[in-house]
Amino acid sequence: MAAWSERLAGVRGVLLDISGVLYDSGAGGGTPIAGSVEAVARLKRSQLKVQFCTNESQKSRGELVAVLRRLGFDISEGEVTAPAPATCQILKERGLRPYLLIHDGVRSEFDHVDMSNPNCVVIADAGEGFSYQNMNKAFQLLMDLENPVLISLGKGRYYKETSGLMLDVGPYMKALEYACGVEAEVVGKPSPEFFNSALQAMGVEAHQEPGNNRVLE
Amino acid sequence: MAAWSERLAGVRGVLLDISGVLYDSGAGGGTPIAGSVEAVARLKRSQLKVQFCTNESQKSRGELVAVLRRLGFDISEGEVTAPAPATCQILKERGLRPYLLIHDGVRSEFDHVDMSNPNCVVIADAGEGFSYQNMNKAFQLLMDLENPVLISLGKGRYYKETSGLMLDVGPYMKALEYACGVEAEVVGKPSPEFFNSALQAMGVEAHQEPGNNRVLE
Repeated sequence: MAAWSERLAGVRGVLLDISGVLYDSGAGGGTPIAGSVEAVARLKRSQLKVQFCTNESQKSRGELVAVLRRLGFDISEGEVTAPAPATCQILKERGLRPYLLIHDGVRSEFDHVDMSNPNCVVIADAGEGFSYQNMNKAFQLLMDLENPVLISLGKGRYYKETSGLMLDVGPYMKALEYACGVEAEVVGKPSPEFFNSALQAMGVEAHQEPGNNRVLE
Repeated sequence: MAAWSERLAGVRGVLLDISGVLYDSGAGGGTPIAGSVEAVARLKRSQLKVQFCTNESQKSRGELVAVLRRLGFDISEGEVTAPAPATCQILKERGLRPYLLIHDGVRSEFDHVDMSNPNCVVIADAGEGFSYQNMNKAFQLLMDLENPVLISLGKGRYYKETSGLMLDVGPYMKALEYACGVEAEVVGKPSPEFFNSALQAMGVEAHQEPGNNRVLE
């Protein structure tokens, strides 16, 4: 394996995923993945810029950062690129008023959003919030709209908790797509716009095709 | 419009759907659709054989027939072709022991099925039973199987109740397919095997390609 210095030649910034990379979420706040606290500290001591790029949509950035800091990570809110704030920006730009099918933990990110008389559905990893009743409400609302807009915060199939695998937002996004005959707009990874907003946040440009970006192992 | 006698030339049997055709289900047992009670009675007085072919999977055949008889329909259990008994036959033939993600109303159809140590998932229109917890259990079970088998009783997108549109089993089937990377086996319409079992039940053969079968309006 080439030395770090050689492999990192020309690299100016590093995007780090959080869940499943830095830690596994779960009861009691979750557990850090071996070596990850030290790896983040080492990156931050280097010349590299660091941004955390997550599809986490059960927690607000504030809550997520609090959990990670308790686990020993050096991380602040401004270093986190997450789908909820990116979605709020889209809603504002397009005059969309959402019905939110989301986890209570992330609801505070939408505090200043107009939700009266909804004209779109925003779906995120709602966990237990994915009841038949809530799904049916989202479905009925989309069916009533002339131009149904479904925004999904990520499209992950599942994620790992300390207690086992858990269904993520993707399967429920697919369910609503099939029921309503619509295609969701995905905000979050792997959308190029989302990665670009993370790069902007750390002031680095993508000089290579996405396929050429490097994964350091 | 041609006369009935001309349009029915060569036709020996009639398959009738139930929900949304004979009646709309809902609170208080639902309501018959105008003219349907008389239409069934007229067909039964004719030389035509009649079979009711439904994807109903919230009720056992006994319960469904009881509801329809209360609404005035001349119908008996043996005249109903439904996915639950067809599924039981498949489970038996293939030695499959299901985890059932189904409505309590149809559970009695599976009374004699071995459900110990499940090696497949059977999903039907579970209504409120489509909780995150139940969906996650089905998902985890499929992910643990070497050869995951997912059987879906129909794949309808939604159905109409007197209170409005309701999500059917199809969206939840799609959710599990996406989460687990599997393709469900659909028992029920529009599967040709299912239509054939309905024809067998009334002793009539399909002499025409499916695309040529007639819909009488």
